Amino acid sequence: MKFNNNFITSTGAFLMFLLFFSCGKEEKTTQANNLSSKDDIKDLAQFVDPMIGTAKMAHTYPGATVPFGSVQLSPDTDTIPYAVDGKYNPDVYKYCAGYQYDDSTIVGFSHTHFSGTGHSDLGDFLIMPTTGELKLNPGTETNPDSGYRSRFSHEKETAEAGYYKVLLEDYNIEAEMTASTRVGMHRYTFADKEEAHVILDLMSGIYNYDDKNVWTFVRVENDTLITGFRQTNGWARTRKVFFAMSFDKPIKNYGRARYDKQPYNGFWRKFDQDENFPEIAGEKIRMYFDFDMEAEEKLQIKLAISPVSSEGALNNMKAEIPHWDFDKVKNDAREQWNKELNKVVVDAENDAEMTNFYTAMYHSFLGPTEYMDVDGKYRGIDMNIHQAENFVNYTSFSLWDTYRALHPLFNILQPERNSNMVEAMLAHYDQSVHKMLPVWSHYANENWCMIGYHSASVISDAIVKGNTGFDEERALEAMVQTAKTGYYDGLEYYMEKGYVPEDKNGASVSKTLEYAYDDWAIAQAAKKLGNQEVFEEFSKRSENYKNVYDSASGFMRPKLDNGEFKKEFDALDTHGQGFIEGNAWNYSLYVPHQPAEMIEMMGGKQQFSQHLDSLFSMELPDKYFENTEDISREGIIGNYVHGNEPSHHVAYLYNWTDTPWKSQDKIRMILKDQYQTGADGLGGNDDFGQMSAWYIFSSFGFYPVAPGSTEYALGSPAINRATINLDNGNTFTVIANNQSAENVFVSKVELNGEVLKEPFIDHTDIMDGGELKFYMSSEPNKEIYRENK
Amino acid sequence: MKFNNNFITSTGAFLMFLLFFSCGKEEKTTQANNLSSKDDIKDLAQFVDPMIGTAKMAHTYPGATVPFGSVQLSPDTDTIPYAVDGKYNPDVYKYCAGYQYDDSTIVGFSHTHFSGTGHSDLGDFLIMPTTGELKLNPGTETNPDSGYRSRFSHEKETAEAGYYKVLLEDYNIEAEMTASTRVGMHRYTFADKEEAHVILDLMSGIYNYDDKNVWTFVRVENDTLITGFRQTNGWARTRKVFFAMSFDKPIKNYGRARYDKQPYNGFWRKFDQDENFPEIAGEKIRMYFDFDMEAEEKLQIKLAISPVSSEGALNNMKAEIPHWDFDKVKNDAREQWNKELNKVVVDAENDAEMTNFYTAMYHSFLGPTEYMDVDGKYRGIDMNIHQAENFVNYTSFSLWDTYRALHPLFNILQPERNSNMVEAMLAHYDQSVHKMLPVWSHYANENWCMIGYHSASVISDAIVKGNTGFDEERALEAMVQTAKTGYYDGLEYYMEKGYVPEDKNGASVSKTLEYAYDDWAIAQAAKKLGNQEVFEEFSKRSENYKNVYDSASGFMRPKLDNGEFKKEFDALDTHGQGFIEGNAWNYSLYVPHQPAEMIEMMGGKQQFSQHLDSLFSMELPDKYFENTEDISREGIIGNYVHGNEPSHHVAYLYNWTDTPWKSQDKIRMILKDQYQTGADGLGGNDDFGQMSAWYIFSSFGFYPVAPGSTEYALGSPAINRATINLDNGNTFTVIANNQSAENVFVSKVELNGEVLKEPFIDHTDIMDGGELKFYMSSEPNKEIYRENK
Repeated sequence: MKFNNNFITSTGAFLMFLLFFSCGKEEKTTQANNLSSKDDIKDLAQFVDPMIGTAKMAHTYPGATVPFGSVQLSPDTDTIPYAVDGKYNPDVYKYCAGYQYDDSTIVGFSHTHFSGTGHSDLGDFLIMPTTGELKLNPGTETNPDSGYRSRFSHEKETAEAGYYKVLLEDYNIEAEMTASTRVGMHRYTFADKEEAHVILDLMSGIYNYDDKNVWTFVRVENDTLITGFRQTNGWARTRKVFFAMSFDKPIKNYGRARYDKQPYNGFWRKFDQDENFPEIAGEKIRMYFDFDMEAEEKLQIKLAISPVSSEGALNNMKAEIPHWDFDKVKNDAREQWNKELNKVVVDAENDAEMTNFYTAMYHSFLGPTEYMDVDGKYRGIDMNIHQAENFVNYTSFSLWDTYRALHPLFNILQPERNSNMVEAMLAHYDQSVHKMLPVWSHYANENWCMIGYHSASVISDAIVKGNTGFDEERALEAMVQTAKTGYYDGLEYYMEKGYVPEDKNGASVSKTLEYAYDDWAIAQAAKKLGNQEVFEEFSKRSENYKNVYDSASGFMRPKLDNGEFKKEFDALDTHGQGFIEGNAWNYSLYVPHQPAEMIEMMGGKQQFSQHLDSLFSMELPDKYFENTEDISREGIIGNYVHGNEPSHHVAYLYNWTDTPWKSQDKIRMILKDQYQTGADGLGGNDDFGQMSAWYIFSSFGFYPVAPGSTEYALGSPAINRATINLDNGNTFTVIANNQSAENVFVSKVELNGEVLKEPFIDHTDIMDGGELKFYMSSEPNKEIYRENK
Repeated sequence: MKFNNNFITSTGAFLMFLLFFSCGKEEKTTQANNLSSKDDIKDLAQFVDPMIGTAKMAHTYPGATVPFGSVQLSPDTDTIPYAVDGKYNPDVYKYCAGYQYDDSTIVGFSHTHFSGTGHSDLGDFLIMPTTGELKLNPGTETNPDSGYRSRFSHEKETAEAGYYKVLLEDYNIEAEMTASTRVGMHRYTFADKEEAHVILDLMSGIYNYDDKNVWTFVRVENDTLITGFRQTNGWARTRKVFFAMSFDKPIKNYGRARYDKQPYNGFWRKFDQDENFPEIAGEKIRMYFDFDMEAEEKLQIKLAISPVSSEGALNNMKAEIPHWDFDKVKNDAREQWNKELNKVVVDAENDAEMTNFYTAMYHSFLGPTEYMDVDGKYRGIDMNIHQAENFVNYTSFSLWDTYRALHPLFNILQPERNSNMVEAMLAHYDQSVHKMLPVWSHYANENWCMIGYHSASVISDAIVKGNTGFDEERALEAMVQTAKTGYYDGLEYYMEKGYVPEDKNGASVSKTLEYAYDDWAIAQAAKKLGNQEVFEEFSKRSENYKNVYDSASGFMRPKLDNGEFKKEFDALDTHGQGFIEGNAWNYSLYVPHQPAEMIEMMGGKQQFSQHLDSLFSMELPDKYFENTEDISREGIIGNYVHGNEPSHHVAYLYNWTDTPWKSQDKIRMILKDQYQTGADGLGGNDDFGQMSAWYIFSSFGFYPVAPGSTEYALGSPAINRATINLDNGNTFTVIANNQSAENVFVSKVELNGEVLKEPFIDHTDIMDGGELKFYMSSEPNKEIYRENK
């Protein structure tokens, strides 16, 4: 048997695989790599620009990582605290991914980052090389010389898939980064002969605050190896990350500074712990390691992480990067990216569109991230160590975002990973004391961010689409149990009254609508599995959206415990109107599972089509959304908010009216307006790939309006041709004839040569392979999909 | 094969045993239980009084535990903090074991306690049952009604080996405790029908202070099971203890209070976490569990601990106490104690002496404590989880104390355990970043308490006495490596100059003397193993005591870096004179390995004998030792300090003069003066059994003056007869003919019928079995041991 490099490094389960060879997944693995020869692989990584989204509020990071990698080694341009003395610092929101394009200094390079999230954490194990006077304070952007940070400029900065390079101007050090799944690798080239310091800042972090650091433990094992852990109380309440860090040159001298008050030092006082003392612990610690460097000499560092132990981290390092060949790691990383990117081979109008597309692919494949050691051990939400038996464990589920398009995209492009992600969710469920599937989970913690129980959507979508390596019955049970956890976020009221009363639990309309959709998703899974009882129970619950529709105003509207609608109501405002991160104009359209019924309820097709027109064309004054972190001016078109998720299906809703062509130009407008090259190219938080997945689907010309259904609604393809190389060996090709920036309307669509009579295709149409051909025009075909009706 | 209950529960290695059956220790195990039939076992536990030492400063605890058990379930009568805002509270010293006999209230029952230590930690998972108004504050002794604590009286209190009972007067609750190795079991009988609360105070601890609690994590798994962990930064810097707690009746209602400032609550704010919320975390937490109790109804609790995980704790509980039969656990515990106590069957003058003897046996078998799960997993000092392969892991090594007599006693009475303790020390060494054997280690931490590297003594003693289940070469390497760790406590100066300079490192004389002894011990092991190089190197080092002897004053005296003795010098003072917890009068005699040479150096036998007389007869004014925690008036006879360890061999030194009979009455005086029945019966910290081991040896009439030698110096036996049932199947009997309180002098000693011509016996004399017969008299035989000289 030939081991394929992609399998080994991307699943990280090599050792486990050896152990479980006889019960392994050989068949699936082979399927997962239908691109068997290196020669077939195009260098599509050339079109990836990790800088896209690093300005403004897209919250992407430019650093080095591999697909779904555990390590994201990336520069942090500031590490301002989330709060000091309990007072929130609003500027921190810019630093969800650690990097802001407009900043002029880099504090250092840390190993863990979320991509595109609207809240944050991580930034573990920040490393910074310096020369000259030893400074242990990071300093400030306005006075960088006061600390160890350095000035930099974008002219001397390169970001590629799996590689990042920058010149640290204050020290004349060229810093290069690359990564494998669990290991970040640094290469620092010192221009001059001098004493260098490598700072390891164990206090630094993203969304940091006074007491976020709970404990730190470090051992200098020998003159090249450091191990330890960092424990934090942040977005994740009880988070522990272990590390092993190795230098390719012996440390000359090292030391630490401790910044916490230290009420009790015990008999450790018999040591000078500040210099060359190998065992260090405390709440707030920074360390330094000194080296004598020759001119043009390189210093390399490997830092591996583990959710389990420092022993696990060291094993990860030995397994993934046993050598010091930086270029090999860099090339391997790029190869991994190319393997993933080649799952779709696209022909677009120009390089900018190629860049947009493959950068969206790149952003879509950044998370959820692998969360286990190479031997399959991981930390569960019960804080016990578990063995991933026959699956790869993942973490960082930004589910309120990603259930919409990212996981459906995975069901096409990453079926095995998506099935493993469901396994990870089920492990979370099993280990959760609440017996709940994840809401927003990361690093063995549930952070409870946002609303709903959208794991149900992800699991249902996988079941309904037949992408199940997991136990479907167990999965259904987990969904049902989750949906009946009364103490969760107004759910007991919802179950009792059919809606969440606004006077009992805020953002009540958003919750009611999303619970109703999730309930429908559960019903669909139950139907597929032949469980009539659950199907009926949850089908009934799925109609609860009707309970918050106010026919007088024509909007979904918060209802009180007494059954009356709340009196004061402003359908434009995002604050205090019963919605979360959205206003009634946008959120009222959130019935993705029953658009036809919703349209009927809201006055019928014609009125609804005009209502949508208004949404896109009206003006939303700033005051209605200011101080709503996840909505920014850039993400808004008219009153339509694309920069945040609740409206992501909205442009496709024209398909349920008699004006499907209106979807086509709206979608192309959104693609053009919200997704551009350049650091400031994205209109809102990328949200761990959800925004990017919307781009990919919409570029293909179809979109999963209601995950949990096998149906995709058609839009307007933005590429000339896309060849989707499926893991099952089939190929699905999208062709957009006569496509251009002007020709955004669809005259006709053929599936395998047959003209489509409805604006929908099915998941099997894709997975069976075939050809979807759009004929494009600058003028709408108002009779499209109706020729035979 | 028949599994012997003692083996299963006392080694706790049952599961490991099953796994490693083929490479197991069957032979040794069989040997270890030569008392094969239950009928042979006498109820010697009747003579154990756990109350002895609970008053004043002996620091013993009265609660329930099994021999070398991981759990010590015992009442805490106060939990005053070690320090508040960095200011030390001297009263805390009374509470090293949590209990003070003279106190009038009990705060609760916690599960981990040191026995007899002179510094402290632990007190984990304090449980207190209450009725009436819910109080979450412990309250104070002066105002017990202000908190959950209760008044109690000794009339309604019982302490036995493995069992403790007390009436909690404020609530009319009878509280009973018992334990297995890893599980504490509680039985509370409520006199009246009412609502009861069980407080679980996760902030409470021994030697607690403001920031000792680092993190707490709790899950209410179901209506009878709680799991979690507590992480502290105290004497142990990075300590984590996991637990699983089970009720025999469903919880009616529960809740928590959190006492730390909580800078960030995140999206957990969507829950009411104060009541009936099953996932709790934070720095400072107290919980309560409510039950409706009928009159005379009993509520039982099992709480298991683990060094590894809450999963490990739960497994420990299931393996050790799978039922709810409190009386069975209590009886099993007593049976375990009787098995251990029956290793010596003693005939003494009266019940008080029987009680003193068997309570000393009890105290000697309280630690080191087992430190691993039933499956053999334990936390190493590297914070990684390790598997104990073919050994039982132990922790809480109070080595500065216990190397003197306790581990030598184990080499006779607990050879397998002592060998396992050495394995545990070697595992510590392997996992230590310093590559040092333990100094004072507990719970996967080195606390560095006191001085020297006395692991070397323990290991050497085992090697020299042939009690080695461990790899001797590896052990020698570990000893040598430890003894060469330059940055440890003045060792680099000691290696360079042959002494520790007082101006470089305080308590320099004590360190020099103890290093010299330890070095000798290493040399003895090297000699036994045929390593001439190490033997010579360390034999040379072992003479370093000569470098701090000041012939002008006749005392060991601090020397400065420049080679001159420090000018100011007071041989009586325990402060700032170059000694730790001792003065020059006592510490100058610390050359246990070369007493003859020391005596010669100090003026010869006659002068030395008189010098010793002076030590015992002179007066030591309070001012010379006040504020020296480990020395109290009760522990002093003349200027001889028995209540602390450095002089424990001193009374035996007359054997190297021409006046060996002086040893005899001094030893009997010490036995009588320092070891009495009653809570205040002990003269100083029992120091994890070292004081008690001194009592046992001295009662036998012999003592290991220099562990690392096979020689025992003879004294004066204080029992009429002692039958030592050795694990190797042999029996060694000590007979003291005509022994009484008055007949303290030895006229003649016969070993197996032959008159001894020297006041020494060898380890093989004991282990081969036989009879040591003392002929006692009220008058000294001044020619004893010299008949043939």
